Amino acid sequence: MELLEKLKWRYATKAMNGKKVPQTTIDEIIEAARLAPTSSGLQPFEIIEITNPETKKEIRKIGWDQSVITDCSHLLVFAAWDNYTAERINKMFDLTNEIRGFKNEGWENYRQMLLSSYPKKEAEVNFNHAAKQAYIGFGMSVAAAAFEAVDSTPMEGFDADALDKILGLREKGLRSCVMLALGYRDVQNDWLVKLKKVRKSTEDFVTIID
Amino acid sequence: MELLEKLKWRYATKAMNGKKVPQTTIDEIIEAARLAPTSSGLQPFEIIEITNPETKKEIRKIGWDQSVITDCSHLLVFAAWDNYTAERINKMFDLTNEIRGFKNEGWENYRQMLLSSYPKKEAEVNFNHAAKQAYIGFGMSVAAAAFEAVDSTPMEGFDADALDKILGLREKGLRSCVMLALGYRDVQNDWLVKLKKVRKSTEDFVTIID
Repeated sequence: MELLEKLKWRYATKAMNGKKVPQTTIDEIIEAARLAPTSSGLQPFEIIEITNPETKKEIRKIGWDQSVITDCSHLLVFAAWDNYTAERINKMFDLTNEIRGFKNEGWENYRQMLLSSYPKKEAEVNFNHAAKQAYIGFGMSVAAAAFEAVDSTPMEGFDADALDKILGLREKGLRSCVMLALGYRDVQNDWLVKLKKVRKSTEDFVTIID
Repeated sequence: MELLEKLKWRYATKAMNGKKVPQTTIDEIIEAARLAPTSSGLQPFEIIEITNPETKKEIRKIGWDQSVITDCSHLLVFAAWDNYTAERINKMFDLTNEIRGFKNEGWENYRQMLLSSYPKKEAEVNFNHAAKQAYIGFGMSVAAAAFEAVDSTPMEGFDADALDKILGLREKGLRSCVMLALGYRDVQNDWLVKLKKVRKSTEDFVTIID
């Protein structure tokens, strides 16, 4: 499978050369996340796409001083809903009715079920659930980047509260989860590029019940 | 991008026709998840690959009676570590040293940092973190399935505790997170196949800081 070859080629790039990735390719990598399946189709996350050098510098300070934050072409921040609210649930169900052009009783009953369950849960529980959906989109963006031979660095090593402040996320009801730096590897200066990829064996990864 | 076309083609299949997906293709869909990046490379999740009809029937009972659970070709259960333990962390760091053939001081310091942070956290916090990594792999499997024109149904609608019992996951220190049914759409009987895909607009999904 061509995609698998690309996934073997990719690695968590530790040094990037500053070269720009074409905007159309970045758009496609983001589109892969937008197309990701999410629980009940709620899409409870957004992406912040950063090229501004000053913003990148600020983020690097609260991101373990990782050089790819400033040396990448585009930095994507995946941010999940801080909570599931009735307003947010209704917005997605209304959008569905609008796009499909009709109301459906089963679908409306499902809306009511979600309205009667999510909003009463603790915000932290809901955020955790929303964050998992963001990680599905994240995985699909990682795959799409590799497919286009764009290097990427997944990063959880940052102060999420500080990042939320830099980007003004809390005011929007969002919380940062994970970042993806996109760009091109700096082969001369990346200590990781020469090392073997490490994954546990398929036997340790899969259990078959046949 | 060819991958994007496939992601537009895919949808959460609601009826499958029972046709078998070639095992080599299933292996590749699982391989995409095995190659997924995870936090600190710990790969804190496993996949249970189920074709056994009796096991599928049992799971359908605790899975909202969704027909794809029994009518799919292969059912994948993504299960995350219930906790980060010193043993698990050491195993992955030892594997890294073994595969790369040397010990590195920076890497060993990083091991100590993880050993001094993860195991003292609450199991639930660690499980939630591990589950997010599982969802990255999940996203990559969804992408790989679509790429190979295999239909898939992402499912969170099941009783996770009951599923853990059916599969004996807790004894292995695992907890089920999400399922992916793989197979082929039953175009005649799938109410969803004829409906438009619903996603929020790119403007509502992306914020640009340039």
